[in-house]
Amino acid sequence: MRDSNGNDGNDGKRIDPAWLPDAAFRAVGSRRTLVRGTGPLAETVCGEVAAACERFGGALVGEGTPADLVLELTDGGVSGGGDGGGAGDGEDFGAEGFGYVRADGRAAVTASGGRGLLYGLFHVVRLGESAFLGGPVREEHRPALALRMLDHWDNVAVHPVMGQVERGYAGGSLFWSDGRAREGLDRVRAYGRLLAACGINAVCVNNVNVHETEAHLLTDRIGEVAAIADALRPYGVRTHLSVTFAAPVVLGPLPTADPLDERVRRWWAGATARVYEAVPDFGGYVVKADSEGQPGPFAYGRTHADGAGLLAAALAPYGGTVHWRAFVYDHRQDWRDRTTDRARAAHDHFVPLDGDFAANAVLQVKHGPMDFQVREPLSPLIGAMPGTRLAVEVQATQEYTGQQRHVCWLGPMWSEVLRARPDGEVSVGQLADALVAVSNVGDDPFWTGHPLAQANLYTFGRLAWDPAADPHAVLDEWIALTHPGAGRRLAEGLHAVLDGSWATYEKYTAPLGVGFMVQPGHHYGPSVDGYEYSPWGTYHFADRDGVGVDRSAGTGTGYAAQYAKPWAELYETPGTCPDELLLFFHHVPYGHVLHSGKTVIQHIYDTHFEGVEEAEEAGRVWAGLADLVEPARHARVAELYEEQVRSAREWRDQVNSYFLRKSGVPDERGRTIY
Amino acid sequence: MRDSNGNDGNDGKRIDPAWLPDAAFRAVGSRRTLVRGTGPLAETVCGEVAAACERFGGALVGEGTPADLVLELTDGGVSGGGDGGGAGDGEDFGAEGFGYVRADGRAAVTASGGRGLLYGLFHVVRLGESAFLGGPVREEHRPALALRMLDHWDNVAVHPVMGQVERGYAGGSLFWSDGRAREGLDRVRAYGRLLAACGINAVCVNNVNVHETEAHLLTDRIGEVAAIADALRPYGVRTHLSVTFAAPVVLGPLPTADPLDERVRRWWAGATARVYEAVPDFGGYVVKADSEGQPGPFAYGRTHADGAGLLAAALAPYGGTVHWRAFVYDHRQDWRDRTTDRARAAHDHFVPLDGDFAANAVLQVKHGPMDFQVREPLSPLIGAMPGTRLAVEVQATQEYTGQQRHVCWLGPMWSEVLRARPDGEVSVGQLADALVAVSNVGDDPFWTGHPLAQANLYTFGRLAWDPAADPHAVLDEWIALTHPGAGRRLAEGLHAVLDGSWATYEKYTAPLGVGFMVQPGHHYGPSVDGYEYSPWGTYHFADRDGVGVDRSAGTGTGYAAQYAKPWAELYETPGTCPDELLLFFHHVPYGHVLHSGKTVIQHIYDTHFEGVEEAEEAGRVWAGLADLVEPARHARVAELYEEQVRSAREWRDQVNSYFLRKSGVPDERGRTIY
Repeated sequence: MRDSNGNDGNDGKRIDPAWLPDAAFRAVGSRRTLVRGTGPLAETVCGEVAAACERFGGALVGEGTPADLVLELTDGGVSGGGDGGGAGDGEDFGAEGFGYVRADGRAAVTASGGRGLLYGLFHVVRLGESAFLGGPVREEHRPALALRMLDHWDNVAVHPVMGQVERGYAGGSLFWSDGRAREGLDRVRAYGRLLAACGINAVCVNNVNVHETEAHLLTDRIGEVAAIADALRPYGVRTHLSVTFAAPVVLGPLPTADPLDERVRRWWAGATARVYEAVPDFGGYVVKADSEGQPGPFAYGRTHADGAGLLAAALAPYGGTVHWRAFVYDHRQDWRDRTTDRARAAHDHFVPLDGDFAANAVLQVKHGPMDFQVREPLSPLIGAMPGTRLAVEVQATQEYTGQQRHVCWLGPMWSEVLRARPDGEVSVGQLADALVAVSNVGDDPFWTGHPLAQANLYTFGRLAWDPAADPHAVLDEWIALTHPGAGRRLAEGLHAVLDGSWATYEKYTAPLGVGFMVQPGHHYGPSVDGYEYSPWGTYHFADRDGVGVDRSAGTGTGYAAQYAKPWAELYETPGTCPDELLLFFHHVPYGHVLHSGKTVIQHIYDTHFEGVEEAEEAGRVWAGLADLVEPARHARVAELYEEQVRSAREWRDQVNSYFLRKSGVPDERGRTIY
Repeated sequence: MRDSNGNDGNDGKRIDPAWLPDAAFRAVGSRRTLVRGTGPLAETVCGEVAAACERFGGALVGEGTPADLVLELTDGGVSGGGDGGGAGDGEDFGAEGFGYVRADGRAAVTASGGRGLLYGLFHVVRLGESAFLGGPVREEHRPALALRMLDHWDNVAVHPVMGQVERGYAGGSLFWSDGRAREGLDRVRAYGRLLAACGINAVCVNNVNVHETEAHLLTDRIGEVAAIADALRPYGVRTHLSVTFAAPVVLGPLPTADPLDERVRRWWAGATARVYEAVPDFGGYVVKADSEGQPGPFAYGRTHADGAGLLAAALAPYGGTVHWRAFVYDHRQDWRDRTTDRARAAHDHFVPLDGDFAANAVLQVKHGPMDFQVREPLSPLIGAMPGTRLAVEVQATQEYTGQQRHVCWLGPMWSEVLRARPDGEVSVGQLADALVAVSNVGDDPFWTGHPLAQANLYTFGRLAWDPAADPHAVLDEWIALTHPGAGRRLAEGLHAVLDGSWATYEKYTAPLGVGFMVQPGHHYGPSVDGYEYSPWGTYHFADRDGVGVDRSAGTGTGYAAQYAKPWAELYETPGTCPDELLLFFHHVPYGHVLHSGKTVIQHIYDTHFEGVEEAEEAGRVWAGLADLVEPARHARVAELYEEQVRSAREWRDQVNSYFLRKSGVPDERGRTIY
């Protein structure tokens, strides 16, 4: 039979099963399972169970036969949104939630919607034997965030500079090749299955930078989008599309894209109606407007709420949503001008519009105020617009965090974001309607280039489902699923190389929240002054006396005052600002003493030496796991560790040399700095 | 009739006549001219005269008719190399020289070879009316350097990063388009004519970085080279080809390119024989070997003399020459290692091989030890190999000198190079066999992108003919030819914007000979640390106390000792080193006092403010010439001045800010530094 990881129809390339190896289904597949309910997702569930049983000797059984596992779709309360009909009365778990009960060696999953049933099945898969064994358990699971989404920055036409996937480090696009949608979509189906298994329910299939070719996906090329949607639908993943705000002009025939022009509103209504004819469960539009050269409502003197409202109105009749990105700033800044602060831009632009956005518009805000640096404070826009629906955007693709050549598990970073409390009380996970990640996946056989970067994708999905989850427990899950039967040594080894990898990466790169210091353009590797005299608004202002950006309200750009009270006060002075963000908020002398007791300059030296030592040690730990990991996977990671260690040394030496040359302060410990 | 500037067959694009506008031929064209002699170049001369006469009312006359101008090809001495038969006895002027006599309102040119006759005609054109008027004159003209050549870094297949023309700032290639030789070669013919008019006699038609496609020009695509050679031949320009040293492997079928392998020698002999079948007057090969990734003899444990000898032997039977580039250095250097000095590399590599090179091999040496920076010392390799033929390479394309967006007339730089006396006695112009420039020409309507960059091309040709010429007199010629009838105001204006433009450019860019400080990759605009931590061997070592590279023999890399005595001693100590090269040879404190009386840091500030002021002033001068210059030409230059001034300010502010932040020393005059 066709194996369950989509290895047919993919040019014979072996594709890594990631967190769904066949062995992960052993517990389910060796039992008698009854599935109650109908509809496409119930069929998917039946298919999964049947395939597992074929492998491990269990069976799908009918009513009346004793079953070890019952998977039941009830018709209680809200429907599954067309993805499944209930089989009986019962509690309402919503479209995606489910109940799970274990007793006497048997288990039951109850869901009110097809997606809930599918997520319940994967819950049982994750539990493995313990889904059935042990004392009685009764649980309810519901996703905290309704929308858990991946944005693919995939270009249809290869971009001359950015390539097939903008900021992609995992090969070509899963969806697009040679200027059109791929012919064989088995790989996309397998992708949908992996996403469902970690709770992701939406995918945007093209880059937010919408170029000429991609603009046509909305209209004459919607059939290609529909084909992708068909491949993702069986796993409960809805398809979204990035569109250009200028579509009525770019695609014609209108002379304007003014959101208040009636012709423009009709244009979008018509285009959207045709989208829904092709993709009845279409999720909605993603828009990057008035940002880094993309067109937007500013050209017509309209607000971003006007712009979002235009698309929201077109989508509303069909239940679609517009994701309107808040990544709006001046990318032609003059580095000489220290009063303009890019970090302020999103808050300055959008807070005045709170309340003006439509009900089916979601403002999509990057988690930090800059651009996915290894360390940023929470964006002050998050929590500042109580009358506006919020999507928080993180970046699974490791643009600034090692580009999937370095191990950098971002679970702890994202968990910090989701647990943060902008007003001191309600967490981001509670405030947000959606969590969105820029995808780290491509057509690489390991999906993510670096095999260990799979952990980021999995962790993202699970944290989007439960933002309060302990990321290390999620990592446990990923390790157990991805390496079935992993003994303690392998599990401990994987934790050793992953747990602290974000902290390690931070240590050997830009210090104390200052950000950037990367090579311009491709953003890989160090260049301390690379963006220092650029128009991008990304500066560190290092001189012979000190370093950092004064963003205080008292003497700086005033950015700190954009936060609600507890944070505004905390960030305002170097004495209360957390060490890890000190240089983001303050320009301080090299001799400034941190809460850690170290001076800034000695902290820079020490962390850079430590970071390299930690990367070297991780490489050694990985080498020691050679007997426990499949050879191709082990070799790929081992090779990448060589590059990571080389690159980490380059970071260490360039950053340390830069600051020694500038400050003249020797390393207390007399280590070699060039 | 077809105009004389090749404006037919060029997609209707108007092409600038450069220094051969029709009006430049007024004096010749309004007279009676007798041409004595036969052969292709005599025909070219007849054609030129006839076209001029058609325009200005003169006539070509036969023997016996009184003539104002006689252009005579004698058969004295060495022949014109097949390019023309003499018409009588007389003095031997060599293949390219000529005699010029003026008396009683009449003029005569006598040459021993066709090229000499053509150069004599252009001499008369340059003189204009004064060729005929005034007291009696008797002159002899012979080129000081036998080979005056342009190397085109043109790719046949567009390179994904470097484009059609590597380091080209004048549009696409004149020769190649869409992966093959252009169909219509009128433009190439017009180019050959311009070159002949300034004395250039050779062109290499493809990039020294020879990629896969270009490798085939040597063999199965030699027909395309032959077509270009046919177009250039009527103006006495010989065609050369860049080849890859690995050709026998790349093109097959050999498993080796070892220069001492008999099969390899036979391969080159065969290939070269076929080249000469297609191009009987083929000039020879240009080779970049073991340099920046290009293959070479090192792979086989052979010397560069072995490598050059291989190709020289293949070319010798046909009178061809191999140009072997001395640009060999480690481009994977570790920036941490201060003992390795890229500036030393060419001397270290090649001096031990002196005497080993074949008689028809020319060692092609960049004029400075690094790479065409705005200021470098003369390469110590020049003059250090008395037993080896020498070609000096300069760069007309303004890679590091403003990329033809800035006015930077390089005549004074090249003149300094040619007049330099490596041993204190014999000048470079006397030592060298050849002067080679990397071409600054493309398919741009003005040939060189920036209309004023034409002056560089013209000056190069004229200095290659006469290295002792005053470059400002050459500029006078260029101004008079390019702007016929230019009044005093225009001539003075052009001198004002061109004369000091190199000095101006130097002032606002990298100071005191330190070099680089450009944006990596494309090399346009400032990035003080852009190459500071790179593998390219290009560092300034600025720290909070000082800046510069210690290349002394006493405490530095020993590079200074590569020079002959007067220079080795001069460069060895900061006290004797010329100011303009101080940071090339020494690492000095910011407070070091220059011969000028200024400190290094104040010199940096002052020159950067002055440089911008000078660029602004040049822009104003140009604006004031609007009524005297053809509108399209004026507008193009005016627009480029805007960019030049913007860029100069960026240089000023980045360099000054960098050094203020690092040194902490304020500007004495309190000007704004950021």
